[in-house]
Amino acid sequence: MSQQLAQEILGELESLRLIDPHTHINPMSAASKTLADIMGYHYYTELAHSAGLAKNRIEEPGLAPKEKVARLVPWLATIENTAQYSWLLEICQVFFGFEGDQITESNWEALYDTSLARMSQPTWEKQVLETSGLDQVYLTNDFDDPLSDFDTSFYVPCLRTDDLVFHLSKTVVRERLKKCTDSSPTNATELKDSLGKLFAHFTANNARACAISLPPSFAPERVTSEAADAVVGKVFQGKDLDSNEQTLLSRFVFWSLAEYCAEYKLPFDLMIGVNRAVFEAGVYQGQDLYDKRVSLIQYKPLLNAFPEVTFPISVLSETSNQELVSYAWIFPNIVTNGHWWYSNIPVYIENDTRGRLQAVPQTKQIGYYSDMYKLEFALPKFAMYRRILAKVLAEDFVIGRGWKSDKAVELGKRVLRGNVESIFGKAP
Amino acid sequence: MSQQLAQEILGELESLRLIDPHTHINPMSAASKTLADIMGYHYYTELAHSAGLAKNRIEEPGLAPKEKVARLVPWLATIENTAQYSWLLEICQVFFGFEGDQITESNWEALYDTSLARMSQPTWEKQVLETSGLDQVYLTNDFDDPLSDFDTSFYVPCLRTDDLVFHLSKTVVRERLKKCTDSSPTNATELKDSLGKLFAHFTANNARACAISLPPSFAPERVTSEAADAVVGKVFQGKDLDSNEQTLLSRFVFWSLAEYCAEYKLPFDLMIGVNRAVFEAGVYQGQDLYDKRVSLIQYKPLLNAFPEVTFPISVLSETSNQELVSYAWIFPNIVTNGHWWYSNIPVYIENDTRGRLQAVPQTKQIGYYSDMYKLEFALPKFAMYRRILAKVLAEDFVIGRGWKSDKAVELGKRVLRGNVESIFGKAP
Amino acid sequence: MSQQLAQEILGELESLRLIDPHTHINPMSAASKTLADIMGYHYYTELAHSAGLAKNRIEEPGLAPKEKVARLVPWLATIENTAQYSWLLEICQVFFGFEGDQITESNWEALYDTSLARMSQPTWEKQVLETSGLDQVYLTNDFDDPLSDFDTSFYVPCLRTDDLVFHLSKTVVRERLKKCTDSSPTNATELKDSLGKLFAHFTANNARACAISLPPSFAPERVTSEAADAVVGKVFQGKDLDSNEQTLLSRFVFWSLAEYCAEYKLPFDLMIGVNRAVFEAGVYQGQDLYDKRVSLIQYKPLLNAFPEVTFPISVLSETSNQELVSYAWIFPNIVTNGHWWYSNIPVYIENDTRGRLQAVPQTKQIGYYSDMYKLEFALPKFAMYRRILAKVLAEDFVIGRGWKSDKAVELGKRVLRGNVESIFGKAP
Repeated sequence: MSQQLAQEILGELESLRLIDPHTHINPMSAASKTLADIMGYHYYTELAHSAGLAKNRIEEPGLAPKEKVARLVPWLATIENTAQYSWLLEICQVFFGFEGDQITESNWEALYDTSLARMSQPTWEKQVLETSGLDQVYLTNDFDDPLSDFDTSFYVPCLRTDDLVFHLSKTVVRERLKKCTDSSPTNATELKDSLGKLFAHFTANNARACAISLPPSFAPERVTSEAADAVVGKVFQGKDLDSNEQTLLSRFVFWSLAEYCAEYKLPFDLMIGVNRAVFEAGVYQGQDLYDKRVSLIQYKPLLNAFPEVTFPISVLSETSNQELVSYAWIFPNIVTNGHWWYSNIPVYIENDTRGRLQAVPQTKQIGYYSDMYKLEFALPKFAMYRRILAKVLAEDFVIGRGWKSDKAVELGKRVLRGNVESIFGKAP
Repeated sequence: MSQQLAQEILGELESLRLIDPHTHINPMSAASKTLADIMGYHYYTELAHSAGLAKNRIEEPGLAPKEKVARLVPWLATIENTAQYSWLLEICQVFFGFEGDQITESNWEALYDTSLARMSQPTWEKQVLETSGLDQVYLTNDFDDPLSDFDTSFYVPCLRTDDLVFHLSKTVVRERLKKCTDSSPTNATELKDSLGKLFAHFTANNARACAISLPPSFAPERVTSEAADAVVGKVFQGKDLDSNEQTLLSRFVFWSLAEYCAEYKLPFDLMIGVNRAVFEAGVYQGQDLYDKRVSLIQYKPLLNAFPEVTFPISVLSETSNQELVSYAWIFPNIVTNGHWWYSNIPVYIENDTRGRLQAVPQTKQIGYYSDMYKLEFALPKFAMYRRILAKVLAEDFVIGRGWKSDKAVELGKRVLRGNVESIFGKAP
Repeated sequence: MSQQLAQEILGELESLRLIDPHTHINPMSAASKTLADIMGYHYYTELAHSAGLAKNRIEEPGLAPKEKVARLVPWLATIENTAQYSWLLEICQVFFGFEGDQITESNWEALYDTSLARMSQPTWEKQVLETSGLDQVYLTNDFDDPLSDFDTSFYVPCLRTDDLVFHLSKTVVRERLKKCTDSSPTNATELKDSLGKLFAHFTANNARACAISLPPSFAPERVTSEAADAVVGKVFQGKDLDSNEQTLLSRFVFWSLAEYCAEYKLPFDLMIGVNRAVFEAGVYQGQDLYDKRVSLIQYKPLLNAFPEVTFPISVLSETSNQELVSYAWIFPNIVTNGHWWYSNIPVYIENDTRGRLQAVPQTKQIGYYSDMYKLEFALPKFAMYRRILAKVLAEDFVIGRGWKSDKAVELGKRVLRGNVESIFGKAP
């Protein structure tokens, strides 16, 4: 009974057009050009590497796309069980008419060629968007992105701030900041002014959020300009910071960003818990992991200081989901946000979805984002989420709580799309 | 098949009368007087506040009950998905004959009036108890409660000790202690004697447990009277303690309580993991959260030192449940106790129940308590637990292990009620 | 539908003969001699003790086997709900023809006598192995085991190294090392040479792995011989080490073991997270617990330094499973390994299995090991795992992903046995 119910609810949810509120799409090259763009996604390169394919076989300089795919294909047999593989298969089936249920050494070349022909069509990007039912795609933009070369009402800008908070001690980051803000900060107040220019620029260009990913060790605290002056001066003189100074600088910049989020009424997406470059010899984008020993209690000062800022929060470890549920349950300024990276796997999505739907106000939940680098991935990723969402709605609400199916569908539509618009802004 | 089985088991479990082994009921005003008492439960005020209702709209001084409900009702639409809302709905349906499946701006007033009429009946408390099938309701009593104005064989006293362990540095707490024990401690031995008087008083009045809630940072250790003398002297002279002194004092008092639990053969309920006042601007009782980075290993000295004391343990985070299962699996003096607060949500109750039933001796599990402030909540909360318990019994025991249904029911009855009596004492 | 599917898949999996890649079997006395060997397993003594049976009733010196069983039996009623009890019942039913579904004070004696008769047959060990379908049983050998008295192609040696890493400060451990390596280390280089002799000896005798269990606090780091010289000299002079010195020594020995694993191409089984002797008055082997606050990030230096060593990793707490999944997903040298001890319970096995099958390359997962001390336990433990595995394959792969049943069975066989051979070596 529950499977049939879930199927009915799923049918309704599938009719909904989507907004993808967090991606890494390059709007100037949004869709894939070859299968190598798709299979070059770190989910496949890192899994193939993990299964045994040498990194230098994957990342050889000058490697042609077809050869790259040829090298990856034999390793797909080792990862057929993974959810990640299921996305690839669904992409090939839906977008390229692939009829097999395995991509193998004997059928990949035909697939490569067929897919190449389709992706070469000038309307490919449009086709993908249409098939995927996407009304808007949010981006992750460098702070110095001019935001001038694409339609920001469709590809919605989002100010990504990791570099500012954690990497100001790198010359290249400071130079980028100086250049794009036409400023040359020597103290905390001037740095803050430069940051303000970024917010002015981004919000003038339809930005809907400020965003950052944060290591498990980060604990925000207010740092006044006075307290930060010396270290800001030092870093802009190109001097090295010790770890206490770096922490103080990160806290000062982070807190300043939150202040601007308040001023510019931008939601501040916090993606909490990633350790960068844990696997030093890993493939590109396949090096990051985490330390589950992180708590939202570390964000107590921030959450209390900025009641007017909405913080859509993503957590990397499923062991953090109940904290997220509990904190969102009482803090008005917290929104639960999607299923991030290592938690973007059915078993964790299902548990996490249950917890959120059972205990957080329905208006404060953004169900899903794809985190994709290429447009083709929204479809299978949202499809995976939607199937789980339909299952949870059927089991926990229609069967478990006696809800009418319609009402469950309405809840599903709200977390799938409605809340994205009420929290970040309407689609045009 | 499993749903039908669960239904059959549920039917059997529903025939059982209950003891509620942990509540915050005021025995002089146990039942609600208006819908505002019910909807004023922090589960609703904090969720409404989280969804957007201003705190000062909820906590305005002198606010009439009906007006308070009128202000909360529009926000119920935002929390209909929550388990907490389902309790409210079930209360209104069962106790007030409400026939809708939503409490809305257009139907609440009729509900308010109907419910007011029922709650105004002089037998209301008795009606609620009868409908709920409650044989006993355990309380949470301040250490200076005279325990003289109610029937302690029904409303069973429990000595709550948070103030003693964590707040002796507050003048008001010391004054209360001095007054109720007719003593004026100046050193550790005298403080201990005062504490002893509390145990004598409570056990003379049918108390069945000592209880405390503990922050994640607390780690009990034995502190001798000699080692505590100076700090006890200092605090009773009204001097400020630094954080090391406070820790030492808390440990001394806590350890003394455990010693009295041994002497008076009282179970010591430990409710582990709450951080108070995390959300500083939260509504009344809607400010506390937690840090999941807590471990039962912190209680190693205590658990080893007091083999003769039964410790019913509640954990706040579901990430602590497996530790609780494992510790209860080998420590004779640990009993698993209910599903506390942020873990009192179906998804966590179900997982936690599975773990406990699969690996802890069946005699050492207290299935549930309501934690309620008003009597009407026992019914929907126990109903929620019982449905989950029936599901787990059907799936894991009857289907999974081939048990006869009768045997599964017997296990269910044991954790629902039998163990409450074998651990805390028989109902009259 | 899913139950029937799971049943079909289970039938296929049951036809597979097994290799048990981690046990504590004594190959000179592999099978049980009496029911006391079976019920004396710490899972029963610790649960009975936890439920109320006094330790000195269980561990009385000179206690006859039948009397020991007689004392344990009355307590079985308290643990019938546990998964551990279900193993005992299945053993009695399958191996001893027991027809009841409870072992009680009125039927245990007949069971004792019947089982004694069977276990007294000279072919008992062979019967157990045959009924259990075991092709190989891996051992846990002390580093000074001569490995000379049994068939190492069936009872496969494994070099257990806890004593070396954590207990060199005990005279008896140093003496055992000196004796079995015919050496007398005075500095780090000489100690390393002694360790090398152990690897030479073990690999010459068909050892397939080096193994160790590790406390939550352990964090491996490279320590050079130069840096370790002083502390090695000190410990071999019988002097006490302070805690920093002990940490340095443990790290040096551990890192040396990893170097030898690289040299001798031995997988290094890491069993992460156990605290020894937490319950000081617990029964034999029933004293250990854990602190869930452990992270695989602690192993970052090791995992990066030894890309050529395969690390099959077991974690004690289910809250560590997602980290294990995530680390195995990108690190080529990590293999997920079984369901250890306190996580060897259906609710945790099921969740952990889901996570691993959904996100780790299928070639990098060892589904299960029994951890048994007596041969009779492989059967019920593997049976429990196989039922859960079949359920997950049916629900997540056949239903959830549309796989053909055959393909799901193939995946099941791979994690049940295929990977054991590809990772540790073929059975003869």
